Amino acid sequence: MPPQYALRIACADRPGILAALTGFLWNDLGGNILDLNHYTDDENARFFFLCRFTPLNEASPPRADLMEYPRFRELHEIYEWDARLYDLSVKPRVALLVSKTDHCLYELILKTREGYLNADLCCVLSNHETLAPIARYFGLPFHHFPMTGDRAAQEANLEASLRDYGAENVALARYMQILSAGFTQRWSGRVINVHHGFLPAFKGARPYHQAWERGVKIIGATAHYATEDLDEGPILYQDVIPVKNNWSVKGFIEAGRDIERKVIVEGLKLHLDRRVFLHHGRAIVL
Amino acid sequence: MPPQYALRIACADRPGILAALTGFLWNDLGGNILDLNHYTDDENARFFFLCRFTPLNEASPPRADLMEYPRFRELHEIYEWDARLYDLSVKPRVALLVSKTDHCLYELILKTREGYLNADLCCVLSNHETLAPIARYFGLPFHHFPMTGDRAAQEANLEASLRDYGAENVALARYMQILSAGFTQRWSGRVINVHHGFLPAFKGARPYHQAWERGVKIIGATAHYATEDLDEGPILYQDVIPVKNNWSVKGFIEAGRDIERKVIVEGLKLHLDRRVFLHHGRAIVL
Amino acid sequence: MPPQYALRIACADRPGILAALTGFLWNDLGGNILDLNHYTDDENARFFFLCRFTPLNEASPPRADLMEYPRFRELHEIYEWDARLYDLSVKPRVALLVSKTDHCLYELILKTREGYLNADLCCVLSNHETLAPIARYFGLPFHHFPMTGDRAAQEANLEASLRDYGAENVALARYMQILSAGFTQRWSGRVINVHHGFLPAFKGARPYHQAWERGVKIIGATAHYATEDLDEGPILYQDVIPVKNNWSVKGFIEAGRDIERKVIVEGLKLHLDRRVFLHHGRAIVL
Amino acid sequence: MPPQYALRIACADRPGILAALTGFLWNDLGGNILDLNHYTDDENARFFFLCRFTPLNEASPPRADLMEYPRFRELHEIYEWDARLYDLSVKPRVALLVSKTDHCLYELILKTREGYLNADLCCVLSNHETLAPIARYFGLPFHHFPMTGDRAAQEANLEASLRDYGAENVALARYMQILSAGFTQRWSGRVINVHHGFLPAFKGARPYHQAWERGVKIIGATAHYATEDLDEGPILYQDVIPVKNNWSVKGFIEAGRDIERKVIVEGLKLHLDRRVFLHHGRAIVL
Repeated sequence: MPPQYALRIACADRPGILAALTGFLWNDLGGNILDLNHYTDDENARFFFLCRFTPLNEASPPRADLMEYPRFRELHEIYEWDARLYDLSVKPRVALLVSKTDHCLYELILKTREGYLNADLCCVLSNHETLAPIARYFGLPFHHFPMTGDRAAQEANLEASLRDYGAENVALARYMQILSAGFTQRWSGRVINVHHGFLPAFKGARPYHQAWERGVKIIGATAHYATEDLDEGPILYQDVIPVKNNWSVKGFIEAGRDIERKVIVEGLKLHLDRRVFLHHGRAIVL
Repeated sequence: MPPQYALRIACADRPGILAALTGFLWNDLGGNILDLNHYTDDENARFFFLCRFTPLNEASPPRADLMEYPRFRELHEIYEWDARLYDLSVKPRVALLVSKTDHCLYELILKTREGYLNADLCCVLSNHETLAPIARYFGLPFHHFPMTGDRAAQEANLEASLRDYGAENVALARYMQILSAGFTQRWSGRVINVHHGFLPAFKGARPYHQAWERGVKIIGATAHYATEDLDEGPILYQDVIPVKNNWSVKGFIEAGRDIERKVIVEGLKLHLDRRVFLHHGRAIVL
Repeated sequence: MPPQYALRIACADRPGILAALTGFLWNDLGGNILDLNHYTDDENARFFFLCRFTPLNEASPPRADLMEYPRFRELHEIYEWDARLYDLSVKPRVALLVSKTDHCLYELILKTREGYLNADLCCVLSNHETLAPIARYFGLPFHHFPMTGDRAAQEANLEASLRDYGAENVALARYMQILSAGFTQRWSGRVINVHHGFLPAFKGARPYHQAWERGVKIIGATAHYATEDLDEGPILYQDVIPVKNNWSVKGFIEAGRDIERKVIVEGLKLHLDRRVFLHHGRAIVL
Repeated sequence: MPPQYALRIACADRPGILAALTGFLWNDLGGNILDLNHYTDDENARFFFLCRFTPLNEASPPRADLMEYPRFRELHEIYEWDARLYDLSVKPRVALLVSKTDHCLYELILKTREGYLNADLCCVLSNHETLAPIARYFGLPFHHFPMTGDRAAQEANLEASLRDYGAENVALARYMQILSAGFTQRWSGRVINVHHGFLPAFKGARPYHQAWERGVKIIGATAHYATEDLDEGPILYQDVIPVKNNWSVKGFIEAGRDIERKVIVEGLKLHLDRRVFLHHGRAIVL
């Protein structure tokens, strides 16, 4: 496989920008475009661009600092964009936070091993010991940070561990603790949570019980960025299943596992593939 | 087609009831069971039963008043049930309330003509004249009750018209007016509304705008019984579609039409087929 | 709404083509790109490109003959592409061929009136009189070409009528006659059929009966281009629904109507929006 | 949890049978019905019945041999049915046959451990050593029967192993060998296979390649009973996913894994829950 790069741009929408970008990619970066997506949010007159490319000449990969290209500087002056270049062969380091249920943990590990998730799983951290054997079996470091009452201390230990492992992203794989405002701010845009309800319906605790009480005919799960306001973060991915009329809450919970593991994987994948732009509380996926 | 009947029972759950019911159906009613569904809500220890049957001997259909059967009286004493017998060849009379958009109106009419909905559409009532030609084309009475400021008077006229046509049920096919508490109480359990949002998310006005702002990845529509509390009535049917990342609110509205017409038809069908039991704010569908 | 155009390109895949195309679009056509899609079929090293754009200066729309642009001629020499420019405000003329069932006819008409289909419905032609009132109600010319035994003569009359109305495309909306090889060749790539089976399973007659016999758990319908080989043409769109275990063939047929009308509309829409490229028997949709 | 039993009946359809069965269940077996499903295949005038029940008095479970009940013998004489009683607390012994790909193996094991599958996994058998570590990790016996050229001998060894472990059912979890006619006959109705295509389309080898070549817009997988005629056995469960226009065959294969593991689990579950009746080549699921 030849090396691949992703160029991401966000800026105020202006005509001509696509021609300028593809011209720069070809003439200056020597990039052969594999795919190109863009979106203009007309409400906010904002332009988003994502391009995956491969260098025509492998011997001259794109420079990490795009500002070294005079043409890039020129365009940057005109469009005042927010630009990022990613080498897609560098797998982002992802920490998994779990509690006692294992279906999301298994799924994240298996989908990473298959190559579906472009991740370097660096550690599994938990407030319980329950899932340690799974981490061990797959050769992942596991650390237990029990919830002893001093929540701040527990979270500090956990965060220290994230730093030790060089974690760049965190997947909350049914981690049943609420993270502090400080934590979510420090890790803003890098923590992906799975909520077992179809947000914005059924926020908070026991969403399947809420859904059963309300008598909905379809249940869902939501992958979203963790923010200070619980279950209010930008939504990455959602999935649903119809529920049968004779299902109890237990049936909802059982069936819900499959959509929970689906949405955490898909949400994390979109994030790791650099396809997500955050804007006005929405996650725009290219 | 031989005549078909539906027997519906709701009562406190007790062992042996199914044997008693099928025995009565066979020995006393002479009914050949076509299908039989039951559900026990374990939370509330409540039993629900629905059976469609055809008389073995067409010359002796079941008596309309089941209390004429001694065995039925015996069982009724034991189980203290709420029992109803319906002759399914009698099509319930349904009034359609509409405003200006036509997709739900067309769908309800076409699905009735196909025989998918077992309904006798008795009239189309509206606060606008816009859809009169459609009603006329399909040979349905149309009446225009404009909203002149005096809401109570408008609703009174509308209700008088429902009575004139002998309407037993009402489908709100994108009728863009809020019905009074009195109206919904008088017609309790007989008015089916379509809400263009995935309830309980996005209640109230402009649900597609709300959904776009929140950045959901799936949108939905909900058929529910109209109650005094807007968009809080028991849910009959829901459907959803994924939304693409580059859709504007206009795209949501356009795509939403298909799920709106789907849910109003399916919700009304469940109701007309006598498959719905209301209990503790939930619509239990057998 | 400002005018919109679509530029379509197909050619052998070569690096740099996207930059060249977007450059030409901007510098020479003065086009502001609304959306841009491309696909490279790696098996066949073939590149496909579709771009919707609007002229920055409405007073100078793009010239209909792109060869008048020197830069276009230059690029054409290099890439030897097959290029087409479409003015999207010109609605393609579409003839509807029907027999006796009305659900696809209603759907095509209603979706056109809503503006979902960018079509100018020019006539409804049929081998039966059954659906004439529907055409009349919606103000569409209707012609009856009965099947009297001389199939060639019937088809000749039908084709003459298509020419009279200037039909550019034909939608077979449950037209229950097989078209001759000559017809499908003359109208190659312009006739869209709906087959009531999930192709390539259940080709030919009575696909719902075949599906029931085989005991499948999901049924489908397929929109495809009509070709000489029945039900073998390139597939545009497919949709499916699960079937319940107690459904008879009649249940399959009833439920199938909704997916039939869905696929004929979506298949025709893709075609009319100029999004389809035919290559090696596949319909590539951008 | 109280003990649960399943009573299954298949016979020629005759009126009154449901009343007779529920009466017997209540009066003679002392069974409290949990759920009851029935289906009449009108084409073949055949009646199918499945009832899950729990004994009212746990001290007197139903007798294993129903012929010990005089009332049962009476009814049996009238209806000439094929009747089976299952104690659902007895988990059927299931052997897993695998080759090199692990996603179906993991899924079957994890869904069994969750309790979703009511199975006693007794062994993992394979023609390759690749997946031995997974079996070992989960504490399952693993045996390697390499394909050395003598297919009959390999299969004989494999079958001996199935007998040694007392396997009652076999799940082919992407086992990439064709079983002999003798094997499928001896294990008729007890071997569940997953085919990675939407049967009856794309039988045989490389179904994803076939699907890509044909240009379908939806792909599927099928769980079916293995029979002498490859991919012709009764279908238990099917699932599908839409494919994106720019996916290569590799994309089909990658996305297909999720539906393969889904259908093998759901198909096996229906079988183990005793919900499947085979009749005229169809799998009727109650």
